[in-house]
Amino acid sequence: MNEIEQLVSKVNQFREERNWRQFHKAKDLAISVSIEAAELLEDFQWKTSEEAVEANFENIKEEIADVLIYSIMLADDLKLDIGTIIEEKLEKNARKYPVEKSKGNNAKYTEL
Amino acid sequence: MNEIEQLVSKVNQFREERNWRQFHKAKDLAISVSIEAAELLEDFQWKTSEEAVEANFENIKEEIADVLIYSIMLADDLKLDIGTIIEEKLEKNARKYPVEKSKGNNAKYTEL
Amino acid sequence: MNEIEQLVSKVNQFREERNWRQFHKAKDLAISVSIEAAELLEDFQWKTSEEAVEANFENIKEEIADVLIYSIMLADDLKLDIGTIIEEKLEKNARKYPVEKSKGNNAKYTEL
Amino acid sequence: MNEIEQLVSKVNQFREERNWRQFHKAKDLAISVSIEAAELLEDFQWKTSEEAVEANFENIKEEIADVLIYSIMLADDLKLDIGTIIEEKLEKNARKYPVEKSKGNNAKYTEL
Repeated sequence: MNEIEQLVSKVNQFREERNWRQFHKAKDLAISVSIEAAELLEDFQWKTSEEAVEANFENIKEEIADVLIYSIMLADDLKLDIGTIIEEKLEKNARKYPVEKSKGNNAKYTEL
Repeated sequence: MNEIEQLVSKVNQFREERNWRQFHKAKDLAISVSIEAAELLEDFQWKTSEEAVEANFENIKEEIADVLIYSIMLADDLKLDIGTIIEEKLEKNARKYPVEKSKGNNAKYTEL
Repeated sequence: MNEIEQLVSKVNQFREERNWRQFHKAKDLAISVSIEAAELLEDFQWKTSEEAVEANFENIKEEIADVLIYSIMLADDLKLDIGTIIEEKLEKNARKYPVEKSKGNNAKYTEL
Repeated sequence: MNEIEQLVSKVNQFREERNWRQFHKAKDLAISVSIEAAELLEDFQWKTSEEAVEANFENIKEEIADVLIYSIMLADDLKLDIGTIIEEKLEKNARKYPVEKSKGNNAKYTEL
């Protein structure tokens, strides 16, 4: 197994040891990704980036991990390989945001 | 480089080619994770898991990828290795949810 | 003052007594709406609607209130009257979803 | 009817004319609040508050309305009066954040 497969395997082992796969319907996993993303965002509420990272570094670390864990679970249940879907999305984004048009420009592709 | 490092490297290459790192403040990346998580959730709005996966499989794939891409960018900017933070969080969760207490039980740890 | 104006006035009084308006930048209020919406959603995580309402009724009530409070603050800071913007949006939605096409049909307007 | 009741009535009329109440399970309404909150947040992505309000004022207005509309639907389905739950929440917050301790201070109540 390569490193990504090992990581997915550890995430799956965690839920299988607890017999939790039965609860992991795709819709509830998607809900969980949103909830964890908001908990991550909460670390930045009323703060600048610098203040948030200074005050909440440990928790930011854990919330990013939670977002990744639920995303990996959902991807795996749908038989999606996370390396592949990330590469495919980067390629699609590269077509939407060609380097020559978007360099140093944060405009949405609809505004380019 | 192992597979995870290669993936992070591809994500970084995408934003560096466009000179976009300047826009990627931690707070805005956290905001972006939440927005993409909600776009993923939108694929499940008014639907069961099965209906959503049947109707929106291609888009679900892309939205999971977007959540992962922004999470990887944020982790990398904070010098966090995603393999390490996931393993640490799984270990912490394992202490919160001991196998003997949580097996087949979806109660929150505060209710165990 | 009518009842809506009285409600907005109470929400404003709360933050003015604490001298909190200084922290209420529009972007942070929008972030707060998202965070509270996710806390509301958390009451439904891993549950059916019925189970969630049975188990978490009191908290659901409070989280809906929090979503409304931050939304009212943001609207008020932008000089928006919530009665007016809701009516305008309902009219816009009525054009997107004409009764004859959308009756008993939960398809998105792009699919009608 | 007072102004709040009239507003709730208009929101309900919209969904009843379309026979949409059948789709409005509490869990899906909570999901919808989160999705609309994220669409509101998207107007602020990569921008300061000022830039966002300048660039996206019309859309911000509509997204706040959408958050309010779904929140009102959910509250109404649970037989909750939005005026009452907001007032109760403000009173609870007032106990958590006493004026003398929290004046000009944006610390969380757990840090006061």
